[in-house]
Amino acid sequence: MLLPSTALCLALLPGTVLASVGGEPAFVFNTFSFLIWGALVMWMCAGFTMLEAGSVRTKNASVICLKNIGLYSIAGISYYIVGYNLMYVDVNDLVGTLTLFYNSTPEEIALLTDGSESAAASVVSAGYSTMSDWFFQMVFVATTASIVSGTLAERVKLWSFFAFILVLTAFIYPIIGAWTWGGGWLNQMGFKDFAGSTIVHSTGGWAALAGALVIGARSGKFRKDGTVKLTPPSNVPAVTLGVFILWLGWFGFNGGSQLALGSAADAVAMSIVLANTNLAAAAGVLVAVSVSRPIFGRVDLLSVLNGAIGGLVAITAGPDMVNHIWAILIGGIGGLVCTVGMRLLERWRIDDVVGAIPAHLFAGVWGTLAVCIVSGGNFLTQLIGIVAIGAFVFATSYLVWFVLSRTLGCRVSPTVEELGQDTAELGIEAYPEFVVMPDMETSEDMEKIDD
Amino acid sequence: MLLPSTALCLALLPGTVLASVGGEPAFVFNTFSFLIWGALVMWMCAGFTMLEAGSVRTKNASVICLKNIGLYSIAGISYYIVGYNLMYVDVNDLVGTLTLFYNSTPEEIALLTDGSESAAASVVSAGYSTMSDWFFQMVFVATTASIVSGTLAERVKLWSFFAFILVLTAFIYPIIGAWTWGGGWLNQMGFKDFAGSTIVHSTGGWAALAGALVIGARSGKFRKDGTVKLTPPSNVPAVTLGVFILWLGWFGFNGGSQLALGSAADAVAMSIVLANTNLAAAAGVLVAVSVSRPIFGRVDLLSVLNGAIGGLVAITAGPDMVNHIWAILIGGIGGLVCTVGMRLLERWRIDDVVGAIPAHLFAGVWGTLAVCIVSGGNFLTQLIGIVAIGAFVFATSYLVWFVLSRTLGCRVSPTVEELGQDTAELGIEAYPEFVVMPDMETSEDMEKIDD
Amino acid sequence: MLLPSTALCLALLPGTVLASVGGEPAFVFNTFSFLIWGALVMWMCAGFTMLEAGSVRTKNASVICLKNIGLYSIAGISYYIVGYNLMYVDVNDLVGTLTLFYNSTPEEIALLTDGSESAAASVVSAGYSTMSDWFFQMVFVATTASIVSGTLAERVKLWSFFAFILVLTAFIYPIIGAWTWGGGWLNQMGFKDFAGSTIVHSTGGWAALAGALVIGARSGKFRKDGTVKLTPPSNVPAVTLGVFILWLGWFGFNGGSQLALGSAADAVAMSIVLANTNLAAAAGVLVAVSVSRPIFGRVDLLSVLNGAIGGLVAITAGPDMVNHIWAILIGGIGGLVCTVGMRLLERWRIDDVVGAIPAHLFAGVWGTLAVCIVSGGNFLTQLIGIVAIGAFVFATSYLVWFVLSRTLGCRVSPTVEELGQDTAELGIEAYPEFVVMPDMETSEDMEKIDD
Repeated sequence: MLLPSTALCLALLPGTVLASVGGEPAFVFNTFSFLIWGALVMWMCAGFTMLEAGSVRTKNASVICLKNIGLYSIAGISYYIVGYNLMYVDVNDLVGTLTLFYNSTPEEIALLTDGSESAAASVVSAGYSTMSDWFFQMVFVATTASIVSGTLAERVKLWSFFAFILVLTAFIYPIIGAWTWGGGWLNQMGFKDFAGSTIVHSTGGWAALAGALVIGARSGKFRKDGTVKLTPPSNVPAVTLGVFILWLGWFGFNGGSQLALGSAADAVAMSIVLANTNLAAAAGVLVAVSVSRPIFGRVDLLSVLNGAIGGLVAITAGPDMVNHIWAILIGGIGGLVCTVGMRLLERWRIDDVVGAIPAHLFAGVWGTLAVCIVSGGNFLTQLIGIVAIGAFVFATSYLVWFVLSRTLGCRVSPTVEELGQDTAELGIEAYPEFVVMPDMETSEDMEKIDD
Repeated sequence: MLLPSTALCLALLPGTVLASVGGEPAFVFNTFSFLIWGALVMWMCAGFTMLEAGSVRTKNASVICLKNIGLYSIAGISYYIVGYNLMYVDVNDLVGTLTLFYNSTPEEIALLTDGSESAAASVVSAGYSTMSDWFFQMVFVATTASIVSGTLAERVKLWSFFAFILVLTAFIYPIIGAWTWGGGWLNQMGFKDFAGSTIVHSTGGWAALAGALVIGARSGKFRKDGTVKLTPPSNVPAVTLGVFILWLGWFGFNGGSQLALGSAADAVAMSIVLANTNLAAAAGVLVAVSVSRPIFGRVDLLSVLNGAIGGLVAITAGPDMVNHIWAILIGGIGGLVCTVGMRLLERWRIDDVVGAIPAHLFAGVWGTLAVCIVSGGNFLTQLIGIVAIGAFVFATSYLVWFVLSRTLGCRVSPTVEELGQDTAELGIEAYPEFVVMPDMETSEDMEKIDD
Repeated sequence: MLLPSTALCLALLPGTVLASVGGEPAFVFNTFSFLIWGALVMWMCAGFTMLEAGSVRTKNASVICLKNIGLYSIAGISYYIVGYNLMYVDVNDLVGTLTLFYNSTPEEIALLTDGSESAAASVVSAGYSTMSDWFFQMVFVATTASIVSGTLAERVKLWSFFAFILVLTAFIYPIIGAWTWGGGWLNQMGFKDFAGSTIVHSTGGWAALAGALVIGARSGKFRKDGTVKLTPPSNVPAVTLGVFILWLGWFGFNGGSQLALGSAADAVAMSIVLANTNLAAAAGVLVAVSVSRPIFGRVDLLSVLNGAIGGLVAITAGPDMVNHIWAILIGGIGGLVCTVGMRLLERWRIDDVVGAIPAHLFAGVWGTLAVCIVSGGNFLTQLIGIVAIGAFVFATSYLVWFVLSRTLGCRVSPTVEELGQDTAELGIEAYPEFVVMPDMETSEDMEKIDD
């Protein structure tokens, strides 16, 4: 029901039949895109929480809820105080300025205060509002932090975890962010990572891997005889809900990473990004459905759910290709990488409670390399980016976890682990009314994987 | 990538005080409307999942999660590969072209590649981006598929279900979609169905009904003595969450179906649509609260929750009337139809685990007829549409279910049904730690309904 | 805060390079802002439902779900029938007109009907569509109602609760709304409450407090020896999910309360509002983490979750300051007020099942006063607003609860309370398959708080 397009006197200009967005409308579109898609990315934090609370045993479900709302809060504050500046302000190839806080520009404040036209012109020429960009970037750092909590669930101490998150979100992530999205050396070299397969997801994965190595596996997870104790999720519908939340939030994650909506070209690109994001996730699911049976001996729901995430992570580095078959292939392989990776981690006796390392690190590496095929990335450059970011994040994370383990201690005591962190650390059970079966080990709980 | 800002100089035309949207801004509004509302419609899939996972017994809750994430993935891929083309491309009254894949236009690709102005003009004149429309239509076919999984829960085999969904989303839905939204014969006849009371919801309901007839009721649900075994939901908060998710998603479902946001008229119409959608759902709830007591002997929470869905389905065919009293009436009657329908299905001994047939099929028929009262639909035309779509969907669905039942088999074995699909088909329980009461039948579990 | 509408033909003015939004595009932006942010505010109702269903004991979880979907429905209908008019139409300092229903303007209908240009000009000059504003305001009244259900859970009768909600949403809230946002006497006096710390949240809190006083505490909650029975939440992940939903919805609540998006200034302001909203919530969490240990003897997850809400409520009265440190301080103090308030209520032997009174009333008062510091509010005016609204809402609510208690009865019988409202009032358990532990009182369940 379109109005008669008597709009503009544009027809008077010969050859011009087009009302361009331009200027202030484009500013509003760009800004609003950051805000609404950023809100959906914040929602991913609830997705990680549900996924993790459903994946752990019930005796640790309350603590994982606390860790998740805590990490989102720490990320939001620390990224405001120093993180954003380190990542984006006056980046000197390696890192931005270590100044405190980040605020609206004087022109923006002048516009709000007196509505001056000159201020408006200056504000509009920036393309989008300062704090909308901050908001969108802030929810990304929170995503990185969310990845860590899942891997290390059921054994990492609450306060050590929070301490690590503080360092990760205030320093580690902002520094590698400065190298790339901040305009630093990797960006100058041509490293391509549209929405952060490497910058966000692999970074979270490396930080989680370092923690898993320092802290070790849950007691009893890996036996000397080569068997692995099955630790099925305690609440499968919660895990599933978490994955749907992540899937929804990813439309904001990738769509918003177009970073603009102020032109037809941006709107077209954003549409392509959403279509590819959905196709890749769907392909990740279907591949995981297909391969989990030969790999795990049954259609493994967790692999399928993680396959969606693997597909989403894989497409994140380059969701802007116009040939959507590639999205299906990249996402499908992401699901495969994730499923195989879950099995490999078990063989390597690395305990990742939710499969976050396969989903975010392994699929993230794959997705970042896949950019060479579809979006003109240079293989060597992509590889340098993956390795450099991986080395820095892993090394600094390992160091922080190591220092924490020698100071605060990273790992709860065997008694606490046995009893569950909910009772021992919080004094609040996740489901206090339900009668829970004792955690007895039977031969059925064991799986021989080295065959 | 902003277009040249040639927009200005309206004040030169005497009497023009209005900056119209027009051109590129309208294109961005229209496209973004598809994307953001479409994302909310995708979220409905999580709503169906929660509703269904909470409605089934715990022994089948994991499988229903897998079915739902699987159906969304299958729908997304199959609708990309053939479904969209069958529904929308070169529709010859009956069906579109059976070509593979659907992509951005060459002009869109040119715009992204070189930003040419001529490409921009051509792109903008299309009104919205190609893939944003695909995205929005894709989430609709997924909704249709979601309806089926609820009715058939707890007994349909995983692989047969997936096979049916493939046919439904690749062929059955696209064909009746071609008749209507694709511009085919029913559209030419004047059939009105704003957002799909019939096209989406009844279609899902007919497909579910065909499956329920072929596959039969859960064992023990209907006794020879005329009693019905009560099968209360296992997780009421999950069901409630599911309904709230659906309600939220429906703002996208109906609001986005305005198909445009590029003018004041569209924005006014979209506002009316959202207000009516909410009023109809609220009325469905309140009517169900009122009538469930006489019908079921108590305030039945499930009827109330389903009443919201009945109200939403009923308003979906014509949510654009300016007199909102009608929305309250249509939604209220939708809630009534749904509540009575749940009772009727029990009398007819048709086993619909979540009440999807009353909510989506019965209320969908009512809503499609109600268009005659409020939005100028022709009664005969509406009836022809309802019958033609119903006959086609029911017949083809019945055939597919029948063929599946003779090949793969549609129904799990009595042993699997007794044990639960989670353990038997997946080897993963939904809530493995909670002690679950044995499923003993007592006289209290039985309800005599033929009195 | 619209830019001076010198929009058009800016290019004629030397040095102006700005295409202003203006006219119809601004209308679309403003309207769409109401719709999409309003949809997120509706989502808060699901957040309250999850928070409350997870907080109560399992034997009352189904009833609280019914109360929440019922209250949202009642609010939506009653606010359409009389509430909006009382609040916004022809307000005579004290209250609007008691006319029935609220509809699109004749100009809007003319625009939809014949697309006339004169109608379009008139519609556009209103700034946004009539029903989009109605939709946005409607979800606010629902939020107010949601606050009440949590406090009074586990003991208030279903029908009395619904009766109270009808009065609250049709009359009480609209009347104090008329004083403020409707343009009445408090607005004229300069009372500032950006998105409703007092108007929405304290109002809900006062109504809940009145109910708690009339209805009394749950039996056994407060002992004569001064001990308090611990009543931990039955489903912590559900509570956590609820808080994340509220956090997400609050971006709509505060962001949409900018009430416009049709200019660069509005977009800048909305960005600032979202950043402050997030910072305040994060600070509320972190303060609650820090102070709950000294206050409750442990890191209390519920205090932390409620701390997020306290921070959000506190920032709601003035989330538009450009110095974000203040947002951190205001939110942090909100979290503190909330945590301390939970303890105070226990001392005062007022039974608030979810801590809604500290989170919404106490933090709301703090936030409304804090406006004096950061957004130029006058202390006396703010205080008058707080007291006047508090007195009116508390007095009328108390009266309604009192009348209900003498007529329908407000409180379930001791038998129903013991048995649980789910079984007794609904005949449907929330989790019928799980074996639930008997509600035995042990000394461990008791906490001495008067020390």
